[in-house]
Amino acid sequence: MTQQGILIVLSGPSGAGKGTICKELLRSYPNLHYSVSATTRAARAGEVHGTNYLFVSQEEFQEMIAKDDLLEWANVYGNCYGTPRQYVMELLNDGKDVILEIDTQGAMQIKDKFPEGVFIYIIPPSLNELANRIYKRGTDSLESIKTRLSCATFEIDCAQHYNYVVVNDLVEEAVRKISAIITAEKCNAKRNTLLVNDVCCCKTAES
Amino acid sequence: MTQQGILIVLSGPSGAGKGTICKELLRSYPNLHYSVSATTRAARAGEVHGTNYLFVSQEEFQEMIAKDDLLEWANVYGNCYGTPRQYVMELLNDGKDVILEIDTQGAMQIKDKFPEGVFIYIIPPSLNELANRIYKRGTDSLESIKTRLSCATFEIDCAQHYNYVVVNDLVEEAVRKISAIITAEKCNAKRNTLLVNDVCCCKTAES
Repeated sequence: MTQQGILIVLSGPSGAGKGTICKELLRSYPNLHYSVSATTRAARAGEVHGTNYLFVSQEEFQEMIAKDDLLEWANVYGNCYGTPRQYVMELLNDGKDVILEIDTQGAMQIKDKFPEGVFIYIIPPSLNELANRIYKRGTDSLESIKTRLSCATFEIDCAQHYNYVVVNDLVEEAVRKISAIITAEKCNAKRNTLLVNDVCCCKTAES
Repeated sequence: MTQQGILIVLSGPSGAGKGTICKELLRSYPNLHYSVSATTRAARAGEVHGTNYLFVSQEEFQEMIAKDDLLEWANVYGNCYGTPRQYVMELLNDGKDVILEIDTQGAMQIKDKFPEGVFIYIIPPSLNELANRIYKRGTDSLESIKTRLSCATFEIDCAQHYNYVVVNDLVEEAVRKISAIITAEKCNAKRNTLLVNDVCCCKTAES
């Protein structure tokens, strides 16, 4: 009896540290697989097609939507992001856990379709700290930082729609908490009805 | 801002290993407190009044019910067990976590009154293993073992009303899983609305 894998959805305002946390989790859990998103945005320095993202054209993205090949998709700051459906489904059915790092719009689309997913919202210790992190990353213009911050309050308010909220103060601590969430969710009663039946059935078989 | 403590309710069929797991958890978590139950049953060898149970008479127990001093109570195998209300409430309000080791009847009473509690059901790997454990404990007559086993299937079926199911195959593994559940529940979004508001409020104060 293979327990179906768990779909973990990680969101949080830009600069909250989702990427770093994701990398650490993938390093710790061989059973955890990263779902590579398709995007129409340009690759940043060092980003690899197929590893970080599937970099596609606007036309290709529209075709994926038309074919219902995307589990969710969203337009963020003028760029499109989406999650290829088949890849995720195959992993889950094979008992693998899948982690998605997506924005709140996409997460809520997934929640409608997969309420059994585990929705985790990463928040920074404060908005000041968030601004510092985005500035230090050096990939955003001042204008872009302002836009991201003005969106952050609205986004953080979305945390209430997630199952868990994890403060990313220290990365190791945030990773430890998410690891605990994964372990706990494996024990979730709703995911273990077959297991409980198995224990009860032993009695019937032997009596 | 002190986060209210978490009420952890541990149930499982007799012989599933709740007691051992509870002891290990209490040794690992200084913030975790054991709620001592009141009972009308006779003390077993080595059990201490006020540590293992509050051993009370039938009359004293009836008085506690009448005064609504019990959070839950139940009659199990002819003996009464109950949870003194005030002790638990004071600890929770002080930010301490409280663990209760009670039967399914009591757990469901608590669930009605405190749906925010964390309800964990411990199951043995099989009913055969359960019978072995009760026999080895040496405190039950063969007749009593039969009664306990015939109740076990019904009890295990109650697991569906709990939040989590933990198989107690290896005690250390079961303890590790329950520790993860406690950590995960501290991150539960419903318990962290104040925290999320705090992060959002920083922005308002500074803008």
